Amino acid sequence: MADPSLDNLQLPQTMVNGQQRSEVSVLDRGLAYGDGLFETMRVVDGRIALLDYHLARLRRGLLALKMDADQTAIISELNALAGQLGDGVLKMTLTRGIGKRGYGIPAQAQPTRICQSFAPTGYPIENARTGIRLFECQTRLAVQPLLAGIKHLNRLEQVLARSEWSDSIHAEGMVRDTLGNVIECTMSNLFMLHGERWVTPDLSGCGVQGVMRDYLIDRLGQAGESVEVRKVDFSTLLESTEVFCCNSLYGVWPVIGLADTSWSIGSRTRQAQRLAEQVIK
Amino acid sequence: MADPSLDNLQLPQTMVNGQQRSEVSVLDRGLAYGDGLFETMRVVDGRIALLDYHLARLRRGLLALKMDADQTAIISELNALAGQLGDGVLKMTLTRGIGKRGYGIPAQAQPTRICQSFAPTGYPIENARTGIRLFECQTRLAVQPLLAGIKHLNRLEQVLARSEWSDSIHAEGMVRDTLGNVIECTMSNLFMLHGERWVTPDLSGCGVQGVMRDYLIDRLGQAGESVEVRKVDFSTLLESTEVFCCNSLYGVWPVIGLADTSWSIGSRTRQAQRLAEQVIK
Repeated sequence: MADPSLDNLQLPQTMVNGQQRSEVSVLDRGLAYGDGLFETMRVVDGRIALLDYHLARLRRGLLALKMDADQTAIISELNALAGQLGDGVLKMTLTRGIGKRGYGIPAQAQPTRICQSFAPTGYPIENARTGIRLFECQTRLAVQPLLAGIKHLNRLEQVLARSEWSDSIHAEGMVRDTLGNVIECTMSNLFMLHGERWVTPDLSGCGVQGVMRDYLIDRLGQAGESVEVRKVDFSTLLESTEVFCCNSLYGVWPVIGLADTSWSIGSRTRQAQRLAEQVIK
Repeated sequence: MADPSLDNLQLPQTMVNGQQRSEVSVLDRGLAYGDGLFETMRVVDGRIALLDYHLARLRRGLLALKMDADQTAIISELNALAGQLGDGVLKMTLTRGIGKRGYGIPAQAQPTRICQSFAPTGYPIENARTGIRLFECQTRLAVQPLLAGIKHLNRLEQVLARSEWSDSIHAEGMVRDTLGNVIECTMSNLFMLHGERWVTPDLSGCGVQGVMRDYLIDRLGQAGESVEVRKVDFSTLLESTEVFCCNSLYGVWPVIGLADTSWSIGSRTRQAQRLAEQVIK
């Protein structure tokens, strides 16, 4: 656990390119076009949980967007900020940097690196203990293989999906693609137990490849579980015997309901939850 | 024409929410998620060309993103800035405003309004006179009816498409959707003469509904031309007898080539060009 006395300290200032600042230029292409990437990371005891997975996704994003960035500087800044934060959430945004008007990528573009510290998430502990209900979002994700999987700054689909409900009955919303496939939740990935195997949706057409998803695929595999990454239609979800959603901030939430369908929380979901807790608690 | 002495005046500062500023908070959702809209407007003799068309698109965007904004304040600020600018380009960005971490729309979100003045575009005059060649972009636009047509800040597809060429042979790039339909160019819309009718691609699945496109549909119709908005496959484009692209900054550029296909510049394209020049010169 982090030193409780840290709770009374002011959180570190927002850093922009290594300096304490909380604003960026209106010419930044992150603002103009969503031209950039971000990572939202859980910090526990001054350390970033699943840092290697976050960095791997960041590298995939840099490649997809044809961006370059000083990864050594990023890692050392993130570790330093995590040490100051102790326990909470660290968000890093990496934009293409400042540019003139127009879509063309500036030849001399210098990325803008923004690091923000936040207090720990305030999700109800019951979400993890007694499970959550999913809202069935009508917003569909467009199929765009060029941008699938990475965590870029073009997130209007998630904003629209999350705007569909405001009650406290639903802790998350399930989102399908425009072809009808089950893809993910607005801020989480989905796993479902189908027969004896875990299934998680293929994200080659859309969706965010969450780092907790990648970690659980690895760890469940090491624990002897079979995890299949494949297209998932709606009936496969409904016919599953256990369902959970996950992300790197809260770990695993068992899913107990979606519209008229109910699930009970099984031992296999609790096992996945324990694996998640090994890195975020 | 604008008073030539204005050329020596400094351009107006960037305005953020009506104040001279050139930065926005890193907490702005425009930066975090591309959660907002923009309009790029041609200013001629202190007046905004096609202002009503820009405002109509902005209103459609506000509706699609479930945003609200003080349109009276927007119009009066735009007109005042245009008067100061004289001749050039005015860009207005309207974001959801500042929010906490997370996709949920803040209940009390106050939009951020950013107005930027730019010098007139520096496109070669030959583009309009002798026509341009189109690059054939491999980047495909995803089909997302919820965001189609509006000018939102999620523009990574345009950034990727525009990054495909850097030569000066191609002034624009033609972009198709993931289904193969011809949709638009990276910063322009397309018209093609097919038989006796003008055809311009249907944008209900993706693409930006340009204000010059809307204006030309109206004015060509008034001039007795038939304009059909419909799905356009690649062969329809290639079989057309005249092709042009258009936007609100440069007007109309005749298209004379795409890969191995060539077109000559016909009288019908010159007519469309004159209609465009009526509002931007």
